[in-house]
Amino acid sequence: MRKVRAVVYGVGRMGSIATRLMLENGVDIVGAIARSPEKVGRDLGDVAGLGFQTNVVVEDDAQRVLAGRAADIAVVTVSSYMTDMFDHLRVCAESGVNAVTLSEEALYPWNTSPAETARLDKLAKANGVTITGTGHQDVYWLNLVSLMMGTAHRISSVVGRASWNVDDYGPEVARDQRVGDTPEEFNRFLKDADRPPTFGRNTLDALVADTGLRVAAIENSTRPEIAGTDMQCHTLGLTVPAGRVIGFTDIDTIRTVEGLTFTFEMTGSVYKHGQGDINDWEIHGEPNLRVVNPIVPTQMTTCTQLVNRIPDVINAAPGFVTVDRLPQLKYRAFPLGSYLND
Amino acid sequence: MRKVRAVVYGVGRMGSIATRLMLENGVDIVGAIARSPEKVGRDLGDVAGLGFQTNVVVEDDAQRVLAGRAADIAVVTVSSYMTDMFDHLRVCAESGVNAVTLSEEALYPWNTSPAETARLDKLAKANGVTITGTGHQDVYWLNLVSLMMGTAHRISSVVGRASWNVDDYGPEVARDQRVGDTPEEFNRFLKDADRPPTFGRNTLDALVADTGLRVAAIENSTRPEIAGTDMQCHTLGLTVPAGRVIGFTDIDTIRTVEGLTFTFEMTGSVYKHGQGDINDWEIHGEPNLRVVNPIVPTQMTTCTQLVNRIPDVINAAPGFVTVDRLPQLKYRAFPLGSYLND
Repeated sequence: MRKVRAVVYGVGRMGSIATRLMLENGVDIVGAIARSPEKVGRDLGDVAGLGFQTNVVVEDDAQRVLAGRAADIAVVTVSSYMTDMFDHLRVCAESGVNAVTLSEEALYPWNTSPAETARLDKLAKANGVTITGTGHQDVYWLNLVSLMMGTAHRISSVVGRASWNVDDYGPEVARDQRVGDTPEEFNRFLKDADRPPTFGRNTLDALVADTGLRVAAIENSTRPEIAGTDMQCHTLGLTVPAGRVIGFTDIDTIRTVEGLTFTFEMTGSVYKHGQGDINDWEIHGEPNLRVVNPIVPTQMTTCTQLVNRIPDVINAAPGFVTVDRLPQLKYRAFPLGSYLND
Repeated sequence: MRKVRAVVYGVGRMGSIATRLMLENGVDIVGAIARSPEKVGRDLGDVAGLGFQTNVVVEDDAQRVLAGRAADIAVVTVSSYMTDMFDHLRVCAESGVNAVTLSEEALYPWNTSPAETARLDKLAKANGVTITGTGHQDVYWLNLVSLMMGTAHRISSVVGRASWNVDDYGPEVARDQRVGDTPEEFNRFLKDADRPPTFGRNTLDALVADTGLRVAAIENSTRPEIAGTDMQCHTLGLTVPAGRVIGFTDIDTIRTVEGLTFTFEMTGSVYKHGQGDINDWEIHGEPNLRVVNPIVPTQMTTCTQLVNRIPDVINAAPGFVTVDRLPQLKYRAFPLGSYLND
């Protein structure tokens, strides 16, 4: 059995966890890429806080690392949106290296970033590699729902509610989530024409694509989540006074030509002490169905899916392949290399 | 697009629901088989209580029906155990007709009925057809759990709890579930060497096979569920006095060579008014995970999966193919024929 050879592309909080999970799953880490001067030149084990050295030095020249290490796959934890991800995924494809990313938009970017996705798809096919977006949303917002839908006879609507704690994802995400805004600042932000599509939209696009239905109408609204009392945002080192924004809820709805409606309410906010992530999906039809995860360790399940998907991505046909087209995700009891097709 | 041509093999409660679901999913019913003299010779629509005629007459000669109608698939709702199912599945295979069944043991019968399964597998391959066991357990006890396991990094144990209402499955199942026994009668039944393996065992066997682990030890225990007050068993038209058996719970455990333990507690009993089926799975490891269905319409989801699996079974390679080897089950928004591969 050969080992999977992986490049860690991005050594932030998620990339650090993914590094540990990969090492524990028998992956050879053959390179690490970061841009921060505090990380470049140091051992990956130190940067990732593993407590041991990996003999892999963090470098800042992505192209050089990807071209020279005979890597099977790059595990890319850099950004959430396709516009920011494009160059990172492009260099992977041009280097002939498969890429798996937790970029939320990459879950299903065909409708929200069609030009970038088509270019990457073409580039991936030309270089015989696969690009896939996974992360927490892969199973919890898409495949778990799709699987439950498979047990229904007729569906009129699907309604999902999920939440995540901005403190789990670092200061950049917390700022994107408008933590600390006054309601007035938040409303100005909402009116800004440059706001990218929501990640809920990508989830619903994936569900619609997965069922073969056709989009008739898309609706989106956003409500701020407001601190009822002073709250701590740990990742920003900030006390958010009562009345200020601690995050927001995006409500996405897709109505299909066939009459089925998908709605997803996703809340990303600062949590109170003891508050946990939720994931709760109702399927209305014959019969009515519901699936709930009473425990949702979103940060870990983001990384576990990123790592557990590696064999599926390497095995897949070339192109930008979304997870609705990959096999059902499985537990990896054995080293990841043992799940590779010949 | 061609239509799926199906034979309804067994026109009891489940077969009747499946008939309606198939007709509503654009399936051509080309034959119906039953043994009861009260059903044979009547229109399938009348026997199944559809409220309309189907122009399909219920017949009792399975071989003749299966041989002469160019059917793609037989939807077999006859019995729970492989010993009882063998001849029914054999005649399907020998007639060159794929078979899908809700026989609980057929979910994964390789360990509990190895000889029968191997013979059917060989026969199916020789005749170019597929035999698959599905039903409620397909998604709720196997694939939902397997999918959730796919989001874990390390698993030490998986513990499932499920229940079903014997009143949903007809008098034969209620008698199998020992409804009305005294505790003494139940204990004598338990000591009977002829008792077949539990269905929980088949579920765990499927989970172990799905993860590629190896069975080290199998344990089973059974506890009776006792009526606390007088209870009504509607399917038997029986009042079960307090102190008598209303069903039982099977506790199956499989320990694997690799150290992972699977436990499944399955309760089949008469329900109190307002009581609902449960389905609750905990995955202990890194991270801890849990998935719950707060609504479990087991009777309907047995039939929906039986019908929604039809394209997967027709598309599958020949043999006795268990559902862990089929694609992830999907919602059928369009006629079943549109999901057939060329």
